[in-house]
Amino acid sequence: MKVGIIGLGLIGGSIATDLRKRGFASKILGHDASKLHAETALKFGLIDSVSTMDELINESELIVLAIPGDATLKLLPKVLDKVSSQVVCDVASIKSQICDRVKYHQNRKQFVATHPMAGTEHSGPWAAKAGLFDGKATIFCDAEDSDENVLQTVHKMYEFLNMRVLYMSGFNHDVHAAYISHISHISSFALALTVLEKEKNEKNIFDLASGGFDSTVRLAKSDAEMWAPIFNHNADNVLTVLNTYIESLNKFKTAIEKRDRDDLIGMISKANRIKRALRE
Amino acid sequence: MKVGIIGLGLIGGSIATDLRKRGFASKILGHDASKLHAETALKFGLIDSVSTMDELINESELIVLAIPGDATLKLLPKVLDKVSSQVVCDVASIKSQICDRVKYHQNRKQFVATHPMAGTEHSGPWAAKAGLFDGKATIFCDAEDSDENVLQTVHKMYEFLNMRVLYMSGFNHDVHAAYISHISHISSFALALTVLEKEKNEKNIFDLASGGFDSTVRLAKSDAEMWAPIFNHNADNVLTVLNTYIESLNKFKTAIEKRDRDDLIGMISKANRIKRALRE
Repeated sequence: MKVGIIGLGLIGGSIATDLRKRGFASKILGHDASKLHAETALKFGLIDSVSTMDELINESELIVLAIPGDATLKLLPKVLDKVSSQVVCDVASIKSQICDRVKYHQNRKQFVATHPMAGTEHSGPWAAKAGLFDGKATIFCDAEDSDENVLQTVHKMYEFLNMRVLYMSGFNHDVHAAYISHISHISSFALALTVLEKEKNEKNIFDLASGGFDSTVRLAKSDAEMWAPIFNHNADNVLTVLNTYIESLNKFKTAIEKRDRDDLIGMISKANRIKRALRE
Repeated sequence: MKVGIIGLGLIGGSIATDLRKRGFASKILGHDASKLHAETALKFGLIDSVSTMDELINESELIVLAIPGDATLKLLPKVLDKVSSQVVCDVASIKSQICDRVKYHQNRKQFVATHPMAGTEHSGPWAAKAGLFDGKATIFCDAEDSDENVLQTVHKMYEFLNMRVLYMSGFNHDVHAAYISHISHISSFALALTVLEKEKNEKNIFDLASGGFDSTVRLAKSDAEMWAPIFNHNADNVLTVLNTYIESLNKFKTAIEKRDRDDLIGMISKANRIKRALRE
């Protein structure tokens, strides 16, 4: 199958890598707003050719939009304007507004709204990684608005990426993503800011980071241009969970102020239950 | 050298593993308040024999206290009461109070206060891991209060564990540890509590965790009995940094409430500078 990938960063580049290696794509056309990204992806062999947007849309059987959420909101209707039999999917982290934006588009049935739950804190085609999606979950949103054959094609693609497909409404996706993914990023960004503010000596940060900080702060390396729009577009859900998070921190603060060992042990033991949810 | 290890959990067990394998210890005597831990450590071959506290103190040349901070505060003076030429070190995460507690002990010179900055979120002898300390930093506190030969012995032990030795006052250690290690744990515990509260469906947590949550919440699996005393004993420093952390989160909250893209991008880009400190 001829696959066109718009956006050749971490996600688009990693999709390209596995779809080619595993025999799903016979040819991969690539497009990126950044000439540097496009040329790097070609040089790295992630794609077979750099195409204009129109060439890519005309020549591909499956078109993957692998660009940030706000860019997807703008570009998706324009891509759908131009397709006939082509299948289109996106991979953005916000889903409710994207589904709403094209709900009444005449070619809505050619589109599947998806969100593969995988990534690293790195970005760009340099960050593309074989096997990035293996064993993880991908979410199909408002699947009832997509054509059955179109759904099957996209499902097939994710099978080649070795992902489990879950079905959810766009609305529910955004609620759960805020609870689990988005708040983790805010927690990590704020932690980095705190430590950079308090600990002026970078050598100390480096030396002491192995005490747990390195894992907690990993996400703070994530791309600003990608994440700022996610927080804004999912603001209501993110604010709800952020408020609960700040409340939890205030409970820790009160317990520590009172040197209340029992209360601290109670809260930490409760937090330990996350082990079970993560099945570790 | 005959090494006695009091506390056969993650840290004590991992020290035992490498000191024996790398030829530093000719014999390892072990003691643990938990009979199950002691017998497991013996069965796993982490130690050569289970000893009473007195046997261990009498027969060891180097005694390592690998127990939580509050237990170290209680036990260390009693161990020092009984030593003559034996070298003693601890590995607890709080240092200022430990150094203060034995500052005027007649055998203070036989003791080195250390904190190897390594660990995992797991605990007990089952969690002991070869190579746990490789390439990480260990901190010697108030080293001027230790005898020169005693310091050399403990330094040698850490060389066999493949650690870099840094020198700091106990006071400074606690400030930096709060900024970097302790706040990470609180951030992670509070995140786990928030998600467990908001997301009642554990399957969703599992499915969506690969979106970054899994790394940020890793530390939330850490042991309550170990961490509650750390927060209490280092309360002043922890509260200072916790306040700054809550302030940072409130800044994110305000920016999201205002849908202020520029402000969010500014804060995230600033947080990204943590990359440099972590040299990645």
